[in-house]
Amino acid sequence: MDAIEVIRAKRDGGALSSAQIDWVIGAYTAGGVADEQMSALAMAILLNGMDRREIADWTQAMIRSGERMDWSMLDRPTADKHSTGGVGDKITLPLAPLVAACGAYVPQLSGRGLGHTGGTLDKLESIHGWRASLSNDEMLDVIRDAGAVVCAAGSGLAPADKKLYALRDVTGTVESIPLIASSIMSKKIAEGTGSLVLDVKVGSGAFMKTVEDAHELATTMVELGTDAGVNTVALLTAMDRPLGRAVGNALEVAESVEVLAGGGPADVVELTVRLAREMLAAAGVSGKDPEDALKDGSAMDAWRRMISAQGGDPDAVLPRAAETVQITAPSSGVLRRLDAYGVGLAAWRLGAGRARKEDPVSFGAGVTLHAQVGDIVREGQPLLTLHADETARFDRALEALEGAYEVGLSADSDSLPLVIKRITV
Amino acid sequence: MDAIEVIRAKRDGGALSSAQIDWVIGAYTAGGVADEQMSALAMAILLNGMDRREIADWTQAMIRSGERMDWSMLDRPTADKHSTGGVGDKITLPLAPLVAACGAYVPQLSGRGLGHTGGTLDKLESIHGWRASLSNDEMLDVIRDAGAVVCAAGSGLAPADKKLYALRDVTGTVESIPLIASSIMSKKIAEGTGSLVLDVKVGSGAFMKTVEDAHELATTMVELGTDAGVNTVALLTAMDRPLGRAVGNALEVAESVEVLAGGGPADVVELTVRLAREMLAAAGVSGKDPEDALKDGSAMDAWRRMISAQGGDPDAVLPRAAETVQITAPSSGVLRRLDAYGVGLAAWRLGAGRARKEDPVSFGAGVTLHAQVGDIVREGQPLLTLHADETARFDRALEALEGAYEVGLSADSDSLPLVIKRITV
Repeated sequence: MDAIEVIRAKRDGGALSSAQIDWVIGAYTAGGVADEQMSALAMAILLNGMDRREIADWTQAMIRSGERMDWSMLDRPTADKHSTGGVGDKITLPLAPLVAACGAYVPQLSGRGLGHTGGTLDKLESIHGWRASLSNDEMLDVIRDAGAVVCAAGSGLAPADKKLYALRDVTGTVESIPLIASSIMSKKIAEGTGSLVLDVKVGSGAFMKTVEDAHELATTMVELGTDAGVNTVALLTAMDRPLGRAVGNALEVAESVEVLAGGGPADVVELTVRLAREMLAAAGVSGKDPEDALKDGSAMDAWRRMISAQGGDPDAVLPRAAETVQITAPSSGVLRRLDAYGVGLAAWRLGAGRARKEDPVSFGAGVTLHAQVGDIVREGQPLLTLHADETARFDRALEALEGAYEVGLSADSDSLPLVIKRITV
Repeated sequence: MDAIEVIRAKRDGGALSSAQIDWVIGAYTAGGVADEQMSALAMAILLNGMDRREIADWTQAMIRSGERMDWSMLDRPTADKHSTGGVGDKITLPLAPLVAACGAYVPQLSGRGLGHTGGTLDKLESIHGWRASLSNDEMLDVIRDAGAVVCAAGSGLAPADKKLYALRDVTGTVESIPLIASSIMSKKIAEGTGSLVLDVKVGSGAFMKTVEDAHELATTMVELGTDAGVNTVALLTAMDRPLGRAVGNALEVAESVEVLAGGGPADVVELTVRLAREMLAAAGVSGKDPEDALKDGSAMDAWRRMISAQGGDPDAVLPRAAETVQITAPSSGVLRRLDAYGVGLAAWRLGAGRARKEDPVSFGAGVTLHAQVGDIVREGQPLLTLHADETARFDRALEALEGAYEVGLSADSDSLPLVIKRITV
């Protein structure tokens, strides 16, 4: 078999055979297929697509390129959640300990932020002492102790995906639903979870801008998970506005702790509880209800154990940015619109995100919302507070917010419902 | 500007701006755009196309990546021919000295064979002492002496094309009409010829299998030449069967010398004279007619001077292969079909061509035709002679010829006319 033959088959609109997919992924990981060949193939896949069988083969080949974790030694079912990423999406933080408190184990491998959406590991690292990198044995210890673990994926998991993702990132071949779905699902399946709930975000602040695209991605991923024996469900959820009232690493940790303490913004609580119920149902666990676990303190207990077990101090004072600027409401009325992308971009420019993988993030930087979409505001009241370590960052962040919010006489009927759709096979 | 932005623009079906094309070709040549980025862009171009303005910009950017030759110091107009390659296509050999004998200068940069079609330089190198590599000053000396020069392109001519062609060759991105047209025309325009006749081959033995594809390629190239100020004409000519009766390096040189001596197969003579007239007309030269120059020996004189000026001995005995095998006619009738691709593949397997750029070729290897398509044959008469240096090569060559010829009761009406179409702007 050779690379040119495989590239030509997809270029000319054909379906790749299982043997071709297996060979090309294996040879690429081993260095026998060159980067310039794989990028040409990725572009052909982006433009000509892959069918369900091809995507499943592609995903399985990426899983086989590395190790597959196994949690069968545990005495409870495992459940995981994956979000496609959004602005203010800190849900993993309260969700993992909450589900653990309700009786399932949550072994979650997470990532770092790049661009205008934050990364779960960056957020947790704002907690003094907390470590993202664990060995497989350490992961097992944390799960047994706290019921949940959130850590970085080791290099042994789907190395083909790691190599391919870095290539797609520099060759304009990221935006392919088959390649996005197989990238996400190869890691989640290799991670060994028994059940999986996908939170596919839709809107300006999400990777998928339309319900149609999000629906296609979600369906593809649910099929992939199901075909691989993982009980998989997806929710399409709103990302036209930020989630909650905090955007930025330490700011989001603080909001997550509020939720675990029984408070927090209604939308964050609602989505956390909904996803927790989906995870428990997918894992086949019917014990405590998530709302009760938030009220009785058991979710907070699981959080504190999880943070401590990874070296973090749950009582440490969170980092704060040195400088703030406030934006006030231009008139009285309803906050009709607060654009997720604009707020995400502002937070990123304030220092909460990174431009290159190597860059550090500012833990204290970000945006606090004093009103959410649909709230009534009065002229001159605080709308947003911007947080940064240096005042020089405010100008470009304010630019990102120009036209990103609107106060009017009535609510915007185009606003997406928090949970748009539920997708199963 | 950055590579991802350019790739995305073409991927999403847009036209690249002149500035984008200029930047991406320049940066690729200089190493600022990586191979994996250029191959993704090439695949996007292959699948989404380029319009006339984009192709012209792409070609000009490749020309600007290197030197552009200039023949304005010469006292006669210059004319060149380019063939897209075929089986038995030795036309350049008699054509260049013929046109020189009729009053135009012919500065022709040629290539080597790869795959089932032969290369002009490989053919000429079967003449003892002949050198393909000349400096620009040596080229000028040969032209002034013989009126024509056929040599290898120096590395300074369109280096972007050289780098891009090597990349396309390993990434399944060769078969794009905009990229093929700009590759050919960037070299021909940089070569500095004042006029150009394109021989675009059509049929099983050619790169373009259908008249439609060949028409599109020819039209694109004629437009490119015209836009660049080169007087350009194209002929679509038959390559469903081999051209002439000789396929293989020294075998084709011998047939070319027959033509220059006033003999040779009718199809080779007809195409040589037709192309010579087109070149002279395009160059604006109206002196001696090519048929006369073949009869009066002046074309042969120009050939001998051209070969001698490049170190070759025009009287040297040509290399012959040590072994031969004959194929005879299976029945009496008309030779209805003799497939160009089958014969080309057989000649290649006999040693006339190379599999990799680094491989040597056998000068004596190839196929001799004892009958051409449309000729009447008797059962048992010799049809083809196969020539090779080692008998081990015959088996796979014979395999290539299975089903490649057919003797029947009447001529095949699907056979293409020698000259199918003439294309100008």
